[in-house]
Amino acid sequence: VDKHSSAYYDLLAGKLYSAVIADILDDLGARNNVMRYDIRPLFPEAVVVGRAATMLAVDVYQIPAAPYKLEMEALDSLKPGDVVVATTNGTTRSALWGELLSTATRARGGRGVILDGFTRDTRQIREMQFPVFATGVLATDSKGRCDVIAYNVPIAVGGVLVEPGDLIFADYDGGVVVPKAIEDQAVERALEKVVGENKVREALQAGMKVAEAFKQFGIL
Amino acid sequence: VDKHSSAYYDLLAGKLYSAVIADILDDLGARNNVMRYDIRPLFPEAVVVGRAATMLAVDVYQIPAAPYKLEMEALDSLKPGDVVVATTNGTTRSALWGELLSTATRARGGRGVILDGFTRDTRQIREMQFPVFATGVLATDSKGRCDVIAYNVPIAVGGVLVEPGDLIFADYDGGVVVPKAIEDQAVERALEKVVGENKVREALQAGMKVAEAFKQFGIL
Amino acid sequence: VDKHSSAYYDLLAGKLYSAVIADILDDLGARNNVMRYDIRPLFPEAVVVGRAATMLAVDVYQIPAAPYKLEMEALDSLKPGDVVVATTNGTTRSALWGELLSTATRARGGRGVILDGFTRDTRQIREMQFPVFATGVLATDSKGRCDVIAYNVPIAVGGVLVEPGDLIFADYDGGVVVPKAIEDQAVERALEKVVGENKVREALQAGMKVAEAFKQFGIL
Amino acid sequence: VDKHSSAYYDLLAGKLYSAVIADILDDLGARNNVMRYDIRPLFPEAVVVGRAATMLAVDVYQIPAAPYKLEMEALDSLKPGDVVVATTNGTTRSALWGELLSTATRARGGRGVILDGFTRDTRQIREMQFPVFATGVLATDSKGRCDVIAYNVPIAVGGVLVEPGDLIFADYDGGVVVPKAIEDQAVERALEKVVGENKVREALQAGMKVAEAFKQFGIL
Amino acid sequence: VDKHSSAYYDLLAGKLYSAVIADILDDLGARNNVMRYDIRPLFPEAVVVGRAATMLAVDVYQIPAAPYKLEMEALDSLKPGDVVVATTNGTTRSALWGELLSTATRARGGRGVILDGFTRDTRQIREMQFPVFATGVLATDSKGRCDVIAYNVPIAVGGVLVEPGDLIFADYDGGVVVPKAIEDQAVERALEKVVGENKVREALQAGMKVAEAFKQFGIL
Amino acid sequence: VDKHSSAYYDLLAGKLYSAVIADILDDLGARNNVMRYDIRPLFPEAVVVGRAATMLAVDVYQIPAAPYKLEMEALDSLKPGDVVVATTNGTTRSALWGELLSTATRARGGRGVILDGFTRDTRQIREMQFPVFATGVLATDSKGRCDVIAYNVPIAVGGVLVEPGDLIFADYDGGVVVPKAIEDQAVERALEKVVGENKVREALQAGMKVAEAFKQFGIL
Repeated sequence: VDKHSSAYYDLLAGKLYSAVIADILDDLGARNNVMRYDIRPLFPEAVVVGRAATMLAVDVYQIPAAPYKLEMEALDSLKPGDVVVATTNGTTRSALWGELLSTATRARGGRGVILDGFTRDTRQIREMQFPVFATGVLATDSKGRCDVIAYNVPIAVGGVLVEPGDLIFADYDGGVVVPKAIEDQAVERALEKVVGENKVREALQAGMKVAEAFKQFGIL
Repeated sequence: VDKHSSAYYDLLAGKLYSAVIADILDDLGARNNVMRYDIRPLFPEAVVVGRAATMLAVDVYQIPAAPYKLEMEALDSLKPGDVVVATTNGTTRSALWGELLSTATRARGGRGVILDGFTRDTRQIREMQFPVFATGVLATDSKGRCDVIAYNVPIAVGGVLVEPGDLIFADYDGGVVVPKAIEDQAVERALEKVVGENKVREALQAGMKVAEAFKQFGIL
Repeated sequence: VDKHSSAYYDLLAGKLYSAVIADILDDLGARNNVMRYDIRPLFPEAVVVGRAATMLAVDVYQIPAAPYKLEMEALDSLKPGDVVVATTNGTTRSALWGELLSTATRARGGRGVILDGFTRDTRQIREMQFPVFATGVLATDSKGRCDVIAYNVPIAVGGVLVEPGDLIFADYDGGVVVPKAIEDQAVERALEKVVGENKVREALQAGMKVAEAFKQFGIL
Repeated sequence: VDKHSSAYYDLLAGKLYSAVIADILDDLGARNNVMRYDIRPLFPEAVVVGRAATMLAVDVYQIPAAPYKLEMEALDSLKPGDVVVATTNGTTRSALWGELLSTATRARGGRGVILDGFTRDTRQIREMQFPVFATGVLATDSKGRCDVIAYNVPIAVGGVLVEPGDLIFADYDGGVVVPKAIEDQAVERALEKVVGENKVREALQAGMKVAEAFKQFGIL
Repeated sequence: VDKHSSAYYDLLAGKLYSAVIADILDDLGARNNVMRYDIRPLFPEAVVVGRAATMLAVDVYQIPAAPYKLEMEALDSLKPGDVVVATTNGTTRSALWGELLSTATRARGGRGVILDGFTRDTRQIREMQFPVFATGVLATDSKGRCDVIAYNVPIAVGGVLVEPGDLIFADYDGGVVVPKAIEDQAVERALEKVVGENKVREALQAGMKVAEAFKQFGIL
Repeated sequence: VDKHSSAYYDLLAGKLYSAVIADILDDLGARNNVMRYDIRPLFPEAVVVGRAATMLAVDVYQIPAAPYKLEMEALDSLKPGDVVVATTNGTTRSALWGELLSTATRARGGRGVILDGFTRDTRQIREMQFPVFATGVLATDSKGRCDVIAYNVPIAVGGVLVEPGDLIFADYDGGVVVPKAIEDQAVERALEKVVGENKVREALQAGMKVAEAFKQFGIL
């Protein structure tokens, strides 16, 4: 399967979840790849899988000569399968994201958004069922308050370094970054672990002791 | 249209949203009128529009001689179209608000509540579909912990100064305070901007570049 | 009625709510028995009533010789009617709880979970409609990060001391701990107060002034 | 010795320290009488011993008709041996205290100040060597921002309930509140414990094992 | 006196303090010009007076092609009487400032530094008695972590907007920004108020009631 | 020179500082070895150099059968050159450390203490000039509140993993952990860099442009 295709991302979204991926990354020694707990989805069903297209934004204190310039460039360069991953360096003064940007992202084949920052237009984004993850919600626009200064550069989101092109997986448990070097291995083993968990679940439902189940399956 | 009528508030609630109002206030130079991000609605559909009826509460450490005295006075003086806007100065020790107060507020024609503070009875308030915005939820009553010491005075809620009678608009993006002096202008321009946003949305859905859309419509 | 039966817990869950219990505990002089506001249910309908089975967990920095050992012991010793009440001493590094542990708890008759800590597998736990309260959500497992070091010992959860066997009540307003010495009295009076609140609600809906209602019923 | 005399307070200031008092209060079952860690002295040598004269202040948003009214009343009613103990309910908007108030307090025989709030004029207060403890420093005056609404009422300072007249002890380890009912006992035993600690110190300096010293003296 | 001369700044540093300036700005209607309480001097005697030379820095996640480029430009363009005023947008990952930069600033006639961010080399800076104000101290360098992206632009420091050239005054009570439009008036009135405070101090020391002193002098 | 001798540690304490070590660790690829900014020394002159002897403590809620047991064992096993490095997992309820433990540590040749937690007896520790670094100060003892559950195990202190025996360096800029594998290299290069910085300082004092100095020496 083509690892840059919608089919691949849809497969992962349908079969995996962020906790099982985090477990496999732990096993593979990548123990710091889960984003901080306060990056939350706008609605519980939101799932995002795709490739990181990064944006680095920063607080400013005057309206720039060309407002939104790099942010628009970044969005107009999105490719199908991309996930917008952005940091605002923790600002609480404005929202970098909103409905029209979500519309534009979806129109280019973008699959969702992960923000270490705020969004707005949340009623409309929920209605679109467009998966946006953010640290908060605020009605205030970013113009003259927060500006994108670079895109497709390494950034930290939720405490995890994200390189452009990294596989991103996020659901109601939060976001995980899969490093390119171990992506194949991680996905393969995560798919296997899901099967194992199904067996444990059935055993526990049937009344097996937890200690016994862990001994038998090695999963908890 | 009478700017103190239910028809007016219903019109605004149906056509506007807090982000577009915030944008217009920005254009008019009122750049600090959005409440802090942690004042959140109890349910996503909550929308409040009306006139601020303010209450100022403070932590106390003994049960007052006449518990709830000024709070009850404040509620019994509510008029149709009022929105209760209250600050507890950030207490996390008790909830100033609850179901019975919501019931009383609605009975007097009050349209909702914005609290820089906590509420309780959240299951019942959700069932009432009464729009309450708060910084948190706690089962603890305010008696002997937090007391209203003044009402219909200027207060700060979510970092924004609110004068009694100010137009309040709050939805899932949070709360905005519209200063009296620019209310007419702000409402008129916000209604216009909503129309413009519809055009941008259609253009983006049709595949127009973001930079092109912003150039053509001046909206993002 | 047997105070350790499902019937008892179901009765309480059906008729009471945490705010009314908190009020009665206030009246009885137990004024610090409501858990901190940031221990929240995974879904609004979650209600937990039962007896505290406590676990004390702590951050560790290497994978223990016998991972999950005391946690599994604790879960395998659960009795019907138990509520798992656990503290992780506020860690944000990993989630102590998840779906398989929820499954095991339910299989033993456990009625829910209150965590001063994080959970994961939240999509599945919501689907199970198993009431889990937590301070946050994170995909990261506790193995090598957080370990149970004791169970059925006194712990503090959300700032309230919990003794094993204490009656726990938690709903969308948060969690309350009912001390054993006043449990009977508290439950009886809470059931009475609910009746009184119904009368106040009707009076307020009918337009009675708040001050008048409080004077007549003594409830607000 | 007269427990309301300067001689008594000076004796305690010279012989005791807050940690030993906290230990004795622990032994006597008063385990929550140490103020929160962020109430700090303006200079390391600051020691305060005396009787609490309390003030309750709250954020306001307009200049009151009679600014500073109750605060001035409170200060003008101070007696020799008093310690001003005040809460601002955690405001960070202004400083309730300053040099001139320190001067007035000292002129009336007041021995120091404990603020759950901010102070200013810190250079001058240090030069006066007047012991002021506060949660922070800010140049902003309280006029129109924070107002005293009651004095000589119970308040909470640093999470500890303080009744007017309670014995207050604060040094570089922070503040402790000694409840009236156990004051005599606590002071007597604290004076004894200081003697015991001197023996342990000497033993440890001489190379005794910690475990041995604790076994022999029961002090650590 | 030349308002851009060392003599002027020295005069202000010798006669004024930040609290009195804050009071006068309050009187003149500039009520939000005091920096947030957590920007603290490295040593108690630090006093800075001069003209703001601003720098805007932002977290980055890779070492730039030309490290420190704009920061060096900014420092090499400093003029006598300048105060470096910089924001890092609240980063806790690295220190923007240090001893060598302090040395360079002093060599160009710079009078001090106000950072909404961290510094390092604090032992040496204390020895230099160079007045640096910062939100914290960290040994970590900014290279590859935080980069200056603009200088001599408006920035917010401690919550106050600073324009290049604004008069900055900071001492142990924290920092104040004097807007250009009211600088003359503010300085003149602050110098007068200091005289008035001396009288109040003497009156209070002599035993005058606080209420009487405030009535007579209008100062507290 | 013997890398486990007092002479070695004294040499490092006299010639190095934490910022220069942090820079060299950056160059060697160890970019996360500086402890969090809130672990601060009790007095500005405090410098600690030595080998980590670790302790892992956790909040408890009842007095243990054998109070202080593992903590006393840990202290009684200290060797000359050891630095006590302890975490309490961030508790603010009690102080793990105090004067008598400092006395015992010094008696065994211990060189100082780094706590991700609180200390008390700060006046006495300052008088001893014993270098203790902590996140805060509180008069409350740890007995029944915080207990050591393991020692000489890997722990995280200020966000940095510390292995027993790691070289620790802390001064007024905070703490740094030098990994064993690169210790020799790091120390050697840090000693060299200090010499380079002296040259830059002189050049800057002589008026060289910052950009020129950085170009010539590669140091800033």
